Amino acid sequence: MKMTDFSMIHLPAVEKEIVSFLSEYTSDESLKESMIYSIHAGGKRIRPLLILSTVTAFNEKIDRTTYQVAAALEMVHTYSLIHDDLPAMDNDDLRRGKPTNHKVYGEALAILAGDGLLTSAFQLLSMTRLDDSPKLLLLQQLAINAGTQGMVAGQAADVKGETQQLSLEELKFIHERKTGRLMHYALLAGGILANQPEEVLTYLQKIANHLGLAFQIRDDLFDIVSTTETLGKTVGKDAKMGKATYPQLIGLKETKMALKHEIAAANTVIDQLEKTVCSFDGELLRQVIQQFGA
Amino acid sequence: MKMTDFSMIHLPAVEKEIVSFLSEYTSDESLKESMIYSIHAGGKRIRPLLILSTVTAFNEKIDRTTYQVAAALEMVHTYSLIHDDLPAMDNDDLRRGKPTNHKVYGEALAILAGDGLLTSAFQLLSMTRLDDSPKLLLLQQLAINAGTQGMVAGQAADVKGETQQLSLEELKFIHERKTGRLMHYALLAGGILANQPEEVLTYLQKIANHLGLAFQIRDDLFDIVSTTETLGKTVGKDAKMGKATYPQLIGLKETKMALKHEIAAANTVIDQLEKTVCSFDGELLRQVIQQFGA
Repeated sequence: MKMTDFSMIHLPAVEKEIVSFLSEYTSDESLKESMIYSIHAGGKRIRPLLILSTVTAFNEKIDRTTYQVAAALEMVHTYSLIHDDLPAMDNDDLRRGKPTNHKVYGEALAILAGDGLLTSAFQLLSMTRLDDSPKLLLLQQLAINAGTQGMVAGQAADVKGETQQLSLEELKFIHERKTGRLMHYALLAGGILANQPEEVLTYLQKIANHLGLAFQIRDDLFDIVSTTETLGKTVGKDAKMGKATYPQLIGLKETKMALKHEIAAANTVIDQLEKTVCSFDGELLRQVIQQFGA
Repeated sequence: MKMTDFSMIHLPAVEKEIVSFLSEYTSDESLKESMIYSIHAGGKRIRPLLILSTVTAFNEKIDRTTYQVAAALEMVHTYSLIHDDLPAMDNDDLRRGKPTNHKVYGEALAILAGDGLLTSAFQLLSMTRLDDSPKLLLLQQLAINAGTQGMVAGQAADVKGETQQLSLEELKFIHERKTGRLMHYALLAGGILANQPEEVLTYLQKIANHLGLAFQIRDDLFDIVSTTETLGKTVGKDAKMGKATYPQLIGLKETKMALKHEIAAANTVIDQLEKTVCSFDGELLRQVIQQFGA
């Protein structure tokens, strides 16, 4: 199946899970509206797609529980964007071509919308019909990857990076956590939902690590070569703010090579997985990865 | 046992669980420091005390798991204070007599410290040695009570209340959620840890509802009668900002009566519980409640 068809079939169902959960389990109307605004602001839904593609790669059926796990992850991603855009953080007015949450609802409600989405992700996961053991594993891994060893640690290091020059190593630390860890969780969650054993989960995490880096390198490249119009957010901002990026640290040519290298490495692990697990078909995952190099 | 002795024995262990967890599971030094700063800023630790008192009331032993569950709850409470103090929210410079988190670490890191503490609470709970079933129930109830039907909804309504006059009903909605729901969780968690059946948990939640209201009414009273020195935060601020409070809505005399009423109602449910569950001894809980009327 083509990725575009796959997305068209499944992504509306993920979005529906998010909106119906937030609608049912929020007791304040403005809070509900602001959370749903940022969910509807779109995005490529790469993290849900990674979960769904991974489940499909193991020839497992996608059901409502899969959608809910994907929904929870997208809620965590959306919370991180809302907080990241705040004046005290990146101070962005635009996200995906639309005014950011605090521009529409004010800073106070934007902070609470982020808090609400994060907490709701755990609530939604806890309410799925999974068996206790995989459910607990998914809850724990979400906290680990989104938390103070994962995404939040990456954001904290990124804040520091705005006032001091970073080394390539420090930049990798930030990318690996700020972007990589939720990708990591996506592939892991797909593997857990497909009841895969430990050694297969390890393969999936290797793919995720390359993907996370590729994604961020591409983002750094975009920041230079895109226009504000096509990207839907303020462009060239990182460079203007003196924020470290791949091109700034290792040059444009090396950056493009690094991107190619990460994509090739991810594909190599998929090849290995196909040889190891006979029911595994990496085609959809390859297509998601392909988008990263586009 | 006297509450002061009980606190002196157990609260340092709860704090130790928080600090050792954050120290072990945080990958960014500034983030770690800012989270621990707010944990060390003190407070009465009422929520942990309620968990520990409830477990003890059922004649169950307090062990490391009890401390961890109490630690997770105090982390959620501390996150809510850090976000609540932000310039975009209550804009408080002092909390418990010390500079608020963002005053020391800046707004960006304060936002992330809150995000980190919230996520860590779920991570810590997921790592306890409880059986799967009570562990999942504790995780789910924490999300429900802290989230968009609970505390976050109360905070969102409170934000709105700053720009418009609230009715007594709306004020109760805010109090019940903003303060009440974590108290509610504390007693529920104590009951879950003591393996109590559904009907006993219902009693505990009734106590918690009265407690939550009493606590907030007392806070409103304090805002009028205290000095900044004894309370350790800016006082008379609610009234100055035109924020609705009990005394403002129903007068000082009625407010004091409402406080007495809630405390008496909580004690009545404790009496009922002692008659129903023969192993139950409500003495410590009565002492915690007593503090609320002081």
